[in-house]
Amino acid sequence: MRNIIPDQIEGYFEKSSLIRKMFEVGISMKKQFGAENIYDFSLGNPDVPPPKEVGESLAKQAEEVSQPLSMGYMPNAGLPAVREMLAEDLSEEQKVELSPDNIIVSCGAAGAINSFLRAAVEPDEEVICPIPFFGEYFFYVENFGAKLKPVQSKENFKLDIDAIEATITEKTRAIIINSPNNPSGQIISEEEIIALSAVLTKKSEEYDRPIYLISDEPYRFLIFENAHVPPILPHYEFSLVIGSYSKSLSLAGARIGYIATNPNMREVAKLTAAITMTTRVLGFVNASIIAQKIILHSKGVGVDVNIYDERRIAMAKVLDEAGIKYQMPKGAFYFFPEVPEGFDDLEFVDLLQKHKILGVPGRAFGAPKFFRLSFCVSAKVIEASGPAFKAVMKEARSTKS
Amino acid sequence: MRNIIPDQIEGYFEKSSLIRKMFEVGISMKKQFGAENIYDFSLGNPDVPPPKEVGESLAKQAEEVSQPLSMGYMPNAGLPAVREMLAEDLSEEQKVELSPDNIIVSCGAAGAINSFLRAAVEPDEEVICPIPFFGEYFFYVENFGAKLKPVQSKENFKLDIDAIEATITEKTRAIIINSPNNPSGQIISEEEIIALSAVLTKKSEEYDRPIYLISDEPYRFLIFENAHVPPILPHYEFSLVIGSYSKSLSLAGARIGYIATNPNMREVAKLTAAITMTTRVLGFVNASIIAQKIILHSKGVGVDVNIYDERRIAMAKVLDEAGIKYQMPKGAFYFFPEVPEGFDDLEFVDLLQKHKILGVPGRAFGAPKFFRLSFCVSAKVIEASGPAFKAVMKEARSTKS
Repeated sequence: MRNIIPDQIEGYFEKSSLIRKMFEVGISMKKQFGAENIYDFSLGNPDVPPPKEVGESLAKQAEEVSQPLSMGYMPNAGLPAVREMLAEDLSEEQKVELSPDNIIVSCGAAGAINSFLRAAVEPDEEVICPIPFFGEYFFYVENFGAKLKPVQSKENFKLDIDAIEATITEKTRAIIINSPNNPSGQIISEEEIIALSAVLTKKSEEYDRPIYLISDEPYRFLIFENAHVPPILPHYEFSLVIGSYSKSLSLAGARIGYIATNPNMREVAKLTAAITMTTRVLGFVNASIIAQKIILHSKGVGVDVNIYDERRIAMAKVLDEAGIKYQMPKGAFYFFPEVPEGFDDLEFVDLLQKHKILGVPGRAFGAPKFFRLSFCVSAKVIEASGPAFKAVMKEARSTKS
Repeated sequence: MRNIIPDQIEGYFEKSSLIRKMFEVGISMKKQFGAENIYDFSLGNPDVPPPKEVGESLAKQAEEVSQPLSMGYMPNAGLPAVREMLAEDLSEEQKVELSPDNIIVSCGAAGAINSFLRAAVEPDEEVICPIPFFGEYFFYVENFGAKLKPVQSKENFKLDIDAIEATITEKTRAIIINSPNNPSGQIISEEEIIALSAVLTKKSEEYDRPIYLISDEPYRFLIFENAHVPPILPHYEFSLVIGSYSKSLSLAGARIGYIATNPNMREVAKLTAAITMTTRVLGFVNASIIAQKIILHSKGVGVDVNIYDERRIAMAKVLDEAGIKYQMPKGAFYFFPEVPEGFDDLEFVDLLQKHKILGVPGRAFGAPKFFRLSFCVSAKVIEASGPAFKAVMKEARSTKS
């Protein structure tokens, strides 16, 4: 019988197999050689335990759960107290006065992006994103019949504003930026935001309909050496900010985040109502009530950034000593080094694997000249990987020269 | 500026306003007259507290949360132990041997249906459902550019198999049934399932591609007078079962359910892999890890069905005494009585409201000759509503005769 699933979905198996393959390779290698002998830098699964407030909230919820409706339905946009807290936090962060009416609590950042896209994007429209980008954006956009249009960035991963402008057409409905960036670890500067906003304002007026700017910021809290992640909302009318507690509270599996609409956007209530409705009809209904109560109890709390900074420094040292080129990450927990001359990313990741190092090929992020290493592992493991990286580079030089 | 949101989404505000209007009317009436003076039968929000196992699990999770990765990412289909438990439970219930590979843990039934639709349905295809139906199906199907085709049922809400057959075209990709039914409280019999399966088998062969049968069963546990909800999987190859803990553990806000694929379906692994992938790319990523651990700890547990049965009997008495016609619900927690002669559903719901009774017009479920009353309220409130229902019917008779 033909057509058990649509051809598009069948094609996705192939497309999404890169990171899945790394998972599988990782599992089988750990079985074969022992987990402690594999340097697994493939995953962005925060291994720092959640702060103590998470446990306190769960204990409190355990006490209160015998009340009727303790775990019942709620408004689709979230618990009023959670929306209030987020409006307060985001007003400070974004330097714009948000009200709870601008907040929709979401099933993580991934849920928020899907709810936004369903609410705003029509089939055959286009969504732009700068390279490198979180590969899942491709699927999120296609869920609703639209197309992702990746745009090459400049040296050092700076936005190429001219290239973005040249990619905008009357079909462009949104642009997604991600800062601090997964995979590059770089932060988009305020100057870049201002220049991008100018282009988007001009083009929105030209086509007489908004081009939305979505700033996906799950790593905003995770910055190093006093780096600054600039606010978005003051610079562009049709902007939205998306955040998540997956990394800041190590709650990735609990699925909790938010989307905030710019209070200064014309007809903002309509867009917010649309996202609230799509949160419902996409089947999220509401963000987990348990996770909502956890973040309410954990206001102002986050995992210790110093732990990640130590790892970052350890990883930089390992890469330096092996002669691998990279740009130092200013945020998030990834290095995105260059693949050595003469290799493509798949080939080089295979070579890493031969030396028991797991990374992800850059093409998963639209950038096949690079590979990603995640530092969600202890500094000890990072340090221990030094000889393996050196052996990789030695072999790389001898193979390709 | 035009086109802040797409016209389709704008149209949804109107379409989805019926139940939302009831919410708002309810809130404002409760403010005006006091909550205890409003007979609110509009909501299906289980008010029976979650069983003690839910609190136990939360307390246990509070203790364990300080472990690294306690709340981390997991396989998109869910925790292996949860999938094992569900495979075991469903094998018994469905009289077919399921393996954990047939189970995807989901963000409630709504999440499961959306994941299935994204995995199986293409734009412009059609999804059939018998009337009356849970109104959200309409939106779920349109999320992915397909169309819902509601089919009239026979007297007493029996499936009209001939009418379903006549509605099937080469564009038909799936049919969604819901038993025990929201809103009718009726159960689809084994004879109906067998007859429906015969038609679907014939038509799938005729068009040389599967027409999936989705059985949405969040109320399977909530049945009265020894009613029997027949299994689905033994009768039809291309069948899937969807369940939820929203009602059985009063966990609606925690968003936890599942979808099970028929192990006897050809290429079942491909469909299951597709649903697992769409669970990820729609932004659910995985069902809440906290809720997964709760259901694992609550195996075999459910809220006390007798509480709902008492309410059902109390409500039947109230309706009998007022002279309102209905078919006795055999499952779920809704009555779906007839609107009296001469009224349409909106008009009659307005009349109910005048007497401080809140119900939902039948057109929200594709059946404008009916209205829905939910018995998620105490038997005391139901009994107290008797005089108001009598006054409604007295006024109805005097107005329309």
